[in-house]
Amino acid sequence: MPDLTPPPAPLGPIRLRAHTHTALRPATAARITGGFWAARRHTNASVSIPQGPERLEQAGNLDNLRAAAGSAGAFTGDFPFQDSDVHKWLEAASWQLADDPGKGGLSTEVERLTSLVAAAQEPDGYLQTYYQVAHPERRWSDLDWGHELYCAGHLIQAGVAHHRATGRRELLDVAVRFATHIDSVFGTDTTTETTTDKKTDGICGHPEIETALVELYRETGERRFLDLAGYFTDRRGHGLLSQGAERDQDHDPGPAYWQDHLPVREAPTVTGHAVRQLYLLAGATDLAMETGDVPLREALERLWHAMATTKTYLTGGVGARHEGEAFGDPFELPPDRAYAETCAAIASVQWSWRMALLTGETRYSDLVERTLYNGFLSGVALDGDRWLYVNPLQVRDDHEPLPGDRTARRTPWFRCACCPPNVMRLLASLPHYVVSGDADGLQLHQYATGTYATYATDATDAAEGGAVTVETDYPWKGRVTITVDAAPADRDWTLSLRIPSWCAEFTVAAPDQQDRTDTGWGWLRIRRRWLPGERVVLDLALDVRLTEPNPRMDAVRGCLAVERGPLVYCLESVDQEAGLRLDEVTLVPTARTVAEHRPDLLGGVTVVTTTGLRRSDGHQTRLTAVPYYAWANRRDGAMRVWIPGS
Amino acid sequence: MPDLTPPPAPLGPIRLRAHTHTALRPATAARITGGFWAARRHTNASVSIPQGPERLEQAGNLDNLRAAAGSAGAFTGDFPFQDSDVHKWLEAASWQLADDPGKGGLSTEVERLTSLVAAAQEPDGYLQTYYQVAHPERRWSDLDWGHELYCAGHLIQAGVAHHRATGRRELLDVAVRFATHIDSVFGTDTTTETTTDKKTDGICGHPEIETALVELYRETGERRFLDLAGYFTDRRGHGLLSQGAERDQDHDPGPAYWQDHLPVREAPTVTGHAVRQLYLLAGATDLAMETGDVPLREALERLWHAMATTKTYLTGGVGARHEGEAFGDPFELPPDRAYAETCAAIASVQWSWRMALLTGETRYSDLVERTLYNGFLSGVALDGDRWLYVNPLQVRDDHEPLPGDRTARRTPWFRCACCPPNVMRLLASLPHYVVSGDADGLQLHQYATGTYATYATDATDAAEGGAVTVETDYPWKGRVTITVDAAPADRDWTLSLRIPSWCAEFTVAAPDQQDRTDTGWGWLRIRRRWLPGERVVLDLALDVRLTEPNPRMDAVRGCLAVERGPLVYCLESVDQEAGLRLDEVTLVPTARTVAEHRPDLLGGVTVVTTTGLRRSDGHQTRLTAVPYYAWANRRDGAMRVWIPGS
Repeated sequence: MPDLTPPPAPLGPIRLRAHTHTALRPATAARITGGFWAARRHTNASVSIPQGPERLEQAGNLDNLRAAAGSAGAFTGDFPFQDSDVHKWLEAASWQLADDPGKGGLSTEVERLTSLVAAAQEPDGYLQTYYQVAHPERRWSDLDWGHELYCAGHLIQAGVAHHRATGRRELLDVAVRFATHIDSVFGTDTTTETTTDKKTDGICGHPEIETALVELYRETGERRFLDLAGYFTDRRGHGLLSQGAERDQDHDPGPAYWQDHLPVREAPTVTGHAVRQLYLLAGATDLAMETGDVPLREALERLWHAMATTKTYLTGGVGARHEGEAFGDPFELPPDRAYAETCAAIASVQWSWRMALLTGETRYSDLVERTLYNGFLSGVALDGDRWLYVNPLQVRDDHEPLPGDRTARRTPWFRCACCPPNVMRLLASLPHYVVSGDADGLQLHQYATGTYATYATDATDAAEGGAVTVETDYPWKGRVTITVDAAPADRDWTLSLRIPSWCAEFTVAAPDQQDRTDTGWGWLRIRRRWLPGERVVLDLALDVRLTEPNPRMDAVRGCLAVERGPLVYCLESVDQEAGLRLDEVTLVPTARTVAEHRPDLLGGVTVVTTTGLRRSDGHQTRLTAVPYYAWANRRDGAMRVWIPGS
Repeated sequence: MPDLTPPPAPLGPIRLRAHTHTALRPATAARITGGFWAARRHTNASVSIPQGPERLEQAGNLDNLRAAAGSAGAFTGDFPFQDSDVHKWLEAASWQLADDPGKGGLSTEVERLTSLVAAAQEPDGYLQTYYQVAHPERRWSDLDWGHELYCAGHLIQAGVAHHRATGRRELLDVAVRFATHIDSVFGTDTTTETTTDKKTDGICGHPEIETALVELYRETGERRFLDLAGYFTDRRGHGLLSQGAERDQDHDPGPAYWQDHLPVREAPTVTGHAVRQLYLLAGATDLAMETGDVPLREALERLWHAMATTKTYLTGGVGARHEGEAFGDPFELPPDRAYAETCAAIASVQWSWRMALLTGETRYSDLVERTLYNGFLSGVALDGDRWLYVNPLQVRDDHEPLPGDRTARRTPWFRCACCPPNVMRLLASLPHYVVSGDADGLQLHQYATGTYATYATDATDAAEGGAVTVETDYPWKGRVTITVDAAPADRDWTLSLRIPSWCAEFTVAAPDQQDRTDTGWGWLRIRRRWLPGERVVLDLALDVRLTEPNPRMDAVRGCLAVERGPLVYCLESVDQEAGLRLDEVTLVPTARTVAEHRPDLLGGVTVVTTTGLRRSDGHQTRLTAVPYYAWANRRDGAMRVWIPGS
């Protein structure tokens, strides 16, 4: 392991600026221009996002908006939260427009869907087609299952993204109207001498509004939205939703399902529905960032530590249980029945990134990296138009696929289609997760070829910040070349590079031996007076690792996993000798491992080969492992991340 | 292992008679009078069954019957199948009356509930309060979720039990009226020259009617009920319920959930909802017994083999998945997330017993024994008034109990209360599962102190059969003394004793060295001209065994389980050194194991002690294991059946 002895404190300021969390226009400040993620983002921009409106049309989401607007349109009422698929697509498309503002076709589609959304809004600002069309009498009364604040949250996120990316206000205005309406409806009663303001004291069964309202505060500067986010966050855990249990016919999901079991500040660990839990904690982190609330920050650090050390898969996937789409007990991480919903991986990335900004520590971006390259990216097929809702780490030879959305076979769209537009918006906004900045410098959290600045490059504050160009073949190669394009001319400035926790050895070549280079909290920090055009070359050793599980992880005892750099590998039947059953093979831990790049395979991947034994006859067999993110892109078969040791 | 080389064929006749499957009155033919099961049955008779009517009153089931009868009574419409709880209680109480006909209080309660049921019946024979009261327009239209034929099945079982146990017809008449109505409603259309008989071509989403109709045929001799059972069995797997998937808001449970994925004859393995699957296969086995249908029998043997060798827990529990209460893939048997519903264990016992009778092979009663002593009996607390719906094989130190019925903490009653009355009826009818008979002799399948005959002892066919008295301290001691009380006086007759598959060594003392004693298919057979009062003493060695899992069982790789005789053992926190975390301990496979009877503990159990190591500091610790069936009867804590080897 690299020597990264922690200094007395993490990076000086505990709040870093990033493009997700300021009103900076990311289009001009962060661009991924080549390499691994550029290819994935190209597929997202050219296949996934353009297909979105058609999928939403077919699934009925757009007709729902038309029906609410009173124009033609059959109503599809399967789920109350179907509008959110549209909102998430609009957010994804908006971030994509930031990347490529000249994209006329996409811009037209965004305008078209924005118009549909705007037309569906009630005069008072309310907007959820399910209640508008099918159940108008139940508005704000099904807070557990209704998803009204959840949909509002995604609408707000879309409005913020659209404004931040394009400078246009149409969608943001819709969002502000709805948020203003919500602010008039929810809260605790206030009584003055002359009036009593009767409000609904309630929270949503599905968090999302919290983080959205903080973003809306950032975008508009209106403090009332931050206060409302604080209200929704702190009213959790007081049983406001306890009556909801009555509505479920079959099983009582319990208060943790709705994230109403304990106040965030008191919770000892992450629990309940994984996406709800993590959206909530992302929002609470946003709050802590804006308010400087230290006890809340401490609770968040405790919760994140519990998640990362006891409830996270090797792939970064979270939410072990199919039942309730929930976190399991500590170390309950079955590979075969892993739920590890794609949306939960996305939520984990969103939360961890906010924790990285709040604390300045690299462990959060370590997990972001692990999740992005593995348990998140597995959620979308290489061709960009088929998806996985669940992301298991094992599929048996005799696996019987589950029906519906939960199948471990790729699917063009889901009945509950939360994941695909969520993948689209994360890939479209991925540049935001690469760097952060503070008064003292720039922090490189992820390694992706591109240009990154800590200021909007069309703004006038360039003198305050810096900008870098990154070139790398990461994750296939460990060399990262960083060119400093801009830095304060009149003072020292710090370029901080995250040394991934998986990395056992690295070297760095900086411009001058006299640079004050130090390491701590996972950061390699180079402090100097920079001249534009100076370069740093970081070389991370990418040895193949055979990873042993924590002995408390019962489900994979005696197994090993293949990893290389940030990538987790897996065996798929299709790559092995004909007829080999993956359930009948063991891995020889002492055998040589060979990494070989195969540009022809799965869009270009480095495969790892090693030696296994067949249980049936003890004969050796060559095992070929491919990156986990690329699994399930060829013919159906068995798959294993964790392989029993010989 | 005992030398049990199979002879050319199993026990001559392939169909054995037993009290569950003839019109014999079990009250007079099979009695458990002492020992292990007498104690459990005493609690069942004195606590569980007497509490039933009060629980049913509190849960609203009895009011539902009153509401359907038009008398007072609020209606509780949570589940359409609530009537079946009443029917199952009536079946349990009826079998109990067979055991103790003088029990006046119970008899009165049975009459009272029978009157409620009878009063609720429609003039045309229909009876399901959910549809009668709340949804009369939807009668027979919700075949997937409606449970109408399921409830009818349990009503029929109750009517048969009541008649067989008491000779009275009130409840049987209600059942016959409903069955007659069902026969008039369901079937494929028949057209003659002059008339067309339009019928509903359908099956029930929850099997149960199939086995019930065969029993009704046995009890009444009316062939139409057997034919109807055949119709319902063979119409499965043709997609009749496929439209049902539309009704589920959240997830499509898929056709296997309803047992409509494949015809029984074509299915390669057990799959889908475990209780539904096994009730169906019990019914199909009854059919094969009555019709001699060889292809059906072959399919059943294939399915049972798949279940027993790839989808059954060490405890006999089945149905690994919480989601859909379903069988998992082969070898997907997680100990922590084991669903292993108590009802599924009961269904497994019922099916395996029918297979034992159909084939004459002991492997089926081996599984009955394993299931009865472990995964079934764990479903009821030692005090008889608290229950488990799910029966996991592991509870972690930091386990967060699930809400509602699925909790691994004992519960006084369930919202979906299928399990408690199911436990009651199996314990009440347990004597039926002890012996079978054929023209040639008597087969002892289970070892329980009592008296057992192959004829009704108040009937006149005693000359055709035989009777034995069994005395044993099984499962604590391996000695079983069998006294032959009656046997044909004029010819040889065979006493067959099942040698359990777990038994590595046994001795037998028979009256005469010249007896033709042989072994095969798990049977020890003693053939001779018997004199009343002659004894056989069987001694089964009860060594403690450390059982290794099949290497394909990923979830418990590297673990060992403690077994002794038919009992599976477990560690519970409460028995270990203070503060020991069960997740932090390993078992030393080479250490001495000591079995010691503790009459003071858990109603009297033999505990097994051995040596473990604490992972934290490598120090030794004494591990104390108790029988799994007795777990969760003291303070809450961790529990493990499978323990990592040191």
